[in-house]
Amino acid sequence: MYVTGRDVRLACREGRLTSQTSGLAKGYVQANLAILPKDWAYDFLIFAQRNPKPCPILEVGEVGSVKSFILSKDGDVCTDFPKYRVFKDGELVDEPTDISDLWQDDFVYFLIGCSFSFEEALLSADLDVRHITEGKNVPMYRSNLICQGAGRFKDTQMVVSMRPFSPSDAMKAIAITRDFPSVHGGPVHIGDPSQIGIQDINSPDWGDSVKINEGEVPLFWACGVTPQQAAAVAKPPIMITHAPGHMFVGDKKNYDYRI
Amino acid sequence: MYVTGRDVRLACREGRLTSQTSGLAKGYVQANLAILPKDWAYDFLIFAQRNPKPCPILEVGEVGSVKSFILSKDGDVCTDFPKYRVFKDGELVDEPTDISDLWQDDFVYFLIGCSFSFEEALLSADLDVRHITEGKNVPMYRSNLICQGAGRFKDTQMVVSMRPFSPSDAMKAIAITRDFPSVHGGPVHIGDPSQIGIQDINSPDWGDSVKINEGEVPLFWACGVTPQQAAAVAKPPIMITHAPGHMFVGDKKNYDYRI
Repeated sequence: MYVTGRDVRLACREGRLTSQTSGLAKGYVQANLAILPKDWAYDFLIFAQRNPKPCPILEVGEVGSVKSFILSKDGDVCTDFPKYRVFKDGELVDEPTDISDLWQDDFVYFLIGCSFSFEEALLSADLDVRHITEGKNVPMYRSNLICQGAGRFKDTQMVVSMRPFSPSDAMKAIAITRDFPSVHGGPVHIGDPSQIGIQDINSPDWGDSVKINEGEVPLFWACGVTPQQAAAVAKPPIMITHAPGHMFVGDKKNYDYRI
Repeated sequence: MYVTGRDVRLACREGRLTSQTSGLAKGYVQANLAILPKDWAYDFLIFAQRNPKPCPILEVGEVGSVKSFILSKDGDVCTDFPKYRVFKDGELVDEPTDISDLWQDDFVYFLIGCSFSFEEALLSADLDVRHITEGKNVPMYRSNLICQGAGRFKDTQMVVSMRPFSPSDAMKAIAITRDFPSVHGGPVHIGDPSQIGIQDINSPDWGDSVKINEGEVPLFWACGVTPQQAAAVAKPPIMITHAPGHMFVGDKKNYDYRI
């Protein structure tokens, strides 16, 4: 049983936890990961500044340091995720559970806000968050919304996640999530998927398809997979991310990110 | 009469306007300025990421480029402010009205959110924004709230601005300003000034003292003078800012920055 974020981090560090973190240590903030060489970190920071909804940075490390000090007191970004993904020149080459041996002195880590944070708030309001109800991953799509470019990060299609609601629950979901601007904030689109370039809502590009009931409206949020999409285009020589769903759990609470 | 942001920018560019921009081109977003060499820009970006309330970056330029392209379509950061301040090694050395001859190939500009944006929303709600009612500058104070350091930007006391309200209007002012997280957002403190290190609320460190009526409560917001305070400590070899109150006026509207 993982009660606190630290419980989860220690289990990852000691190799006891290599699976997804969804639902673990309820109330504690979970974060996505991007690690880049310093040479690429500046461009990535500007990319994030220009695209805060898909890329809400919660913490940037000191150059060469593996120690998290804002989201957590004693986190180690090389060991405290259950699983990582290593990309070389934009291609996935490995999925290790520890990256200590890959760390370089010029690496900079970015911990990035995750929709798990606002989903907790949706559940607290008794909303039916469909993929959770169905025990699935959230459906994600490559949209035709193009992110503002920055340096070598350009021509990036924004990745969006979708959650369907009744119209009245949709109003609640919009109001709740806009209070969390540092974890994706309010939706970027509501209704007709084709308006943002999604041809078949039942065929997501990542995650699982979920049931949309008669009379429900789909809401689309900017998604933290977008930075990986940006990297797939920019092809940095090396970039390390979390494996999808395998997050860093901090000492801060989701509520700390409510405005 | 300046109807649009472009009207103001052209007047600055042609030398027709060298005075404050408060109240000009109502509805259009106004922005603070910081220009730093690329060598310092990375640290400044991290400083801003760690301290978004006092340092809400709205636009970062490409290295060496003077052309604004997010807040405006055709802005030139060297000519489109009415007045600038040039700091060398942390010391104010000049207050020119055009900095084209000072521009260097390694310069990066930052346009930073300004409280003028949320003040318009407060006025629209018929709130009495005291310094505006009194025709003064907002009172600003060096607080004992210490910003999170980043690289060479460290040990920076957050500068705060103060606006007094009746308790019921204070509730409205909090609700309104929290909807503008990219222009300082909600207050950082309410009530007793001594709790954030302000000894005499009638002696601001910048701007003018304003009347606080019986029964009113002071609200304190993070202030855009904080980056200049950070520079005064870090002492970059050169840093150029706007002169206080002499802002860049964009093509975007204040409402674009409401969540």
